[in-house]
Amino acid sequence: MRLSQLFTKTSKTVPADETARNAQLLIRAGYVYKVMAGVYAYTPLGLRVLENIKRIVREEMNAVDGQEIVMSSLQRKETWENTGRWDDEVVDVWFKSKLKDETEVGFGWSHEEAILEMMQQFIKSYKDLPTSVYQFQAKLRNELRAKSGIMRGREFVMKDMYSLHATEEDMDQYYETVIEAYKRCYERFGLGDSTFVTFASGGAFTKFSHEFQTICDAGEDVLYVNDDQTIAVNEEVLDDAARELGIDKADLKPVKSAEVGNIFKFGTDKAEQMGVSFTDSDGQQKPIYLASYGIGITRVMGVIVEKFADDKGIVWPEAVAPYRVYLVRIGGDEAVKHADKLYKELTSKGIEVLYDDRDERPGAKFADSELLGIPQRVTVSDRLIETEKYEYTSRKTGQTSELTRSELFATLNKSS
Amino acid sequence: MRLSQLFTKTSKTVPADETARNAQLLIRAGYVYKVMAGVYAYTPLGLRVLENIKRIVREEMNAVDGQEIVMSSLQRKETWENTGRWDDEVVDVWFKSKLKDETEVGFGWSHEEAILEMMQQFIKSYKDLPTSVYQFQAKLRNELRAKSGIMRGREFVMKDMYSLHATEEDMDQYYETVIEAYKRCYERFGLGDSTFVTFASGGAFTKFSHEFQTICDAGEDVLYVNDDQTIAVNEEVLDDAARELGIDKADLKPVKSAEVGNIFKFGTDKAEQMGVSFTDSDGQQKPIYLASYGIGITRVMGVIVEKFADDKGIVWPEAVAPYRVYLVRIGGDEAVKHADKLYKELTSKGIEVLYDDRDERPGAKFADSELLGIPQRVTVSDRLIETEKYEYTSRKTGQTSELTRSELFATLNKSS
Repeated sequence: MRLSQLFTKTSKTVPADETARNAQLLIRAGYVYKVMAGVYAYTPLGLRVLENIKRIVREEMNAVDGQEIVMSSLQRKETWENTGRWDDEVVDVWFKSKLKDETEVGFGWSHEEAILEMMQQFIKSYKDLPTSVYQFQAKLRNELRAKSGIMRGREFVMKDMYSLHATEEDMDQYYETVIEAYKRCYERFGLGDSTFVTFASGGAFTKFSHEFQTICDAGEDVLYVNDDQTIAVNEEVLDDAARELGIDKADLKPVKSAEVGNIFKFGTDKAEQMGVSFTDSDGQQKPIYLASYGIGITRVMGVIVEKFADDKGIVWPEAVAPYRVYLVRIGGDEAVKHADKLYKELTSKGIEVLYDDRDERPGAKFADSELLGIPQRVTVSDRLIETEKYEYTSRKTGQTSELTRSELFATLNKSS
Repeated sequence: MRLSQLFTKTSKTVPADETARNAQLLIRAGYVYKVMAGVYAYTPLGLRVLENIKRIVREEMNAVDGQEIVMSSLQRKETWENTGRWDDEVVDVWFKSKLKDETEVGFGWSHEEAILEMMQQFIKSYKDLPTSVYQFQAKLRNELRAKSGIMRGREFVMKDMYSLHATEEDMDQYYETVIEAYKRCYERFGLGDSTFVTFASGGAFTKFSHEFQTICDAGEDVLYVNDDQTIAVNEEVLDDAARELGIDKADLKPVKSAEVGNIFKFGTDKAEQMGVSFTDSDGQQKPIYLASYGIGITRVMGVIVEKFADDKGIVWPEAVAPYRVYLVRIGGDEAVKHADKLYKELTSKGIEVLYDDRDERPGAKFADSELLGIPQRVTVSDRLIETEKYEYTSRKTGQTSELTRSELFATLNKSS
């Protein structure tokens, strides 16, 4: 993509109404546009990051035999009444509205009840189980406050997966499989080292739930970790966990963390409340076991920004970056010719390049490349052309070196 | 995909609450699930069709320099008040709700006002124009009635593109470019021969609008066409069009048609109402010219079903079909071995195969392949293995032939 064609622009001004660093940086760099508190639009750059995160999650969910679908945002009152979750006292984040005939409708904030209702149409026998379905969807949640940028929105993209089973053992086994798939996701996002599976109290959801927590100063949660960070425990269950693990509570130190995933075993509770059942091999009607698995896609994007950003701007890990290379052009006709040629070459090799072909000062181009956080910067200039070199800079380390053409291509290939 | 793994199932029962043929067939075949009137979830098969349609549209919008973004569903009242379109008397399809602090919010049914408001942040000068942005998004419209299946939903997927210009000439020119891009879309959907650009009255929208209408018995509109279908005119503008084209109204015969696209020139109306402007080369502040371009992605899917279905089921055009080949396996161990091998071979060649590996009677498998509408059916059976042949059937023509292995591969390659 030629930067001169991109409609977004960077800005030096920190948006006055944003306290969250992720939103400040994402808005300044032109990844998101704020519609209202907790509601953001995603520009071409922002959408590319989201799609990269989704691609990773999609691959991992497919690898555990998840089948991708897409549910509706509009929800029937009756679907949620059986489990008591239509009630605003029980679920306090519903957006609700009315059809023309005064029928109440809700907007999906989660989809357990909707999924079970739908799956009943297809699951009749134990032979139809287990099965697992997932979707990427914009969830709507009427949050009282929304001050964490894209880390907690009133509208946000979530991957929610639901697995259905004939037995508890089968659910437990699959649940463990998904934990491993989730670990691979965080690993691939670049968050592997600092992300932990923790026990969660579950709150309104269920008593069998786990969270994936990433150590991050901007997080809303507190995690208790030991010195070498091999143990991490949620504050809510600290006493129980210390006892169970046989460790001294005093050896666990509090660190701030952000929830980046949340998984639940509902068991047969929901199916019993909703009358959703299957015919088992013994001919008996039995309720279906349900587990659900969420990853906030936009939240992960926000956590990545918070975690890796430095004083110059965003630092995207390679796998989620909107482009791998930021190509800076400095100079006249000769530089244009060389940079155009390199842009075409890299693009034709499948290397995604954001090409700064604007008539801007070098300093402004370098500053934008840092704010935007593209992992690798390559500079073509009149001076460099004379020496047949390219300037290569890693966004993460800031290290700059002058490379020959073959060294440059070797470096770019290596990092892919 | 192995059919034995797919959670959806076909059904012989026509859903009692659906009068629209597209919904009847799509539900029976397991492409969609009805949540409520006008609201459908898309299963793995249905989602694949949607993604194929989106891919075609995305390629064509990128080809006219459209930049993909994604806006929010949640809308601010203030955004729409300037143009009068917040008012339920003016726009009667709003879903509205309230934040916790009683602030009214709406759910996006279209995004012209939201786009202009956002783009003002990035467009300051004539140098920033023209630009064109588009998105695929679930629109929410509180329709009074919803009886046309996925052809008119309360929640549906739309591609909406918006182009912004400094001058009327530039807008007019780009508008013509998009008309050509739209024609390529319908051509690629398999609807090219029966889709016409027509003048529309515009209604509440604007006086400069065009529709793309596909001749289709299930359509809600009426088109007047001449004998060789080179002229097609909307009923609303019949008198004017006949006069303008210098033809006798009596030579145009009415046919039913479905709107599959809708494009508008707003000119500077919206920008003037909203105070959205740019600095022109003469230093003057001027309002931005706006045009918008919609394709109902789910609607197109419905029209394709209605238009091509026969008494056996759906008939997907090759480019939008969820899979290109339906592989039927009939017989014992030898058939399993042969069919498994062919499935792997085709898949490794990038040919998408739905493999009917179920223990079902041949008749049920053939019937499902027809209901599902996969373009090409290949049968492996004990009898065929003996003669070293494959049975090949075209869904569209119903023609069946026995092919050698090399003939089969030649046929499958040809049709891609």
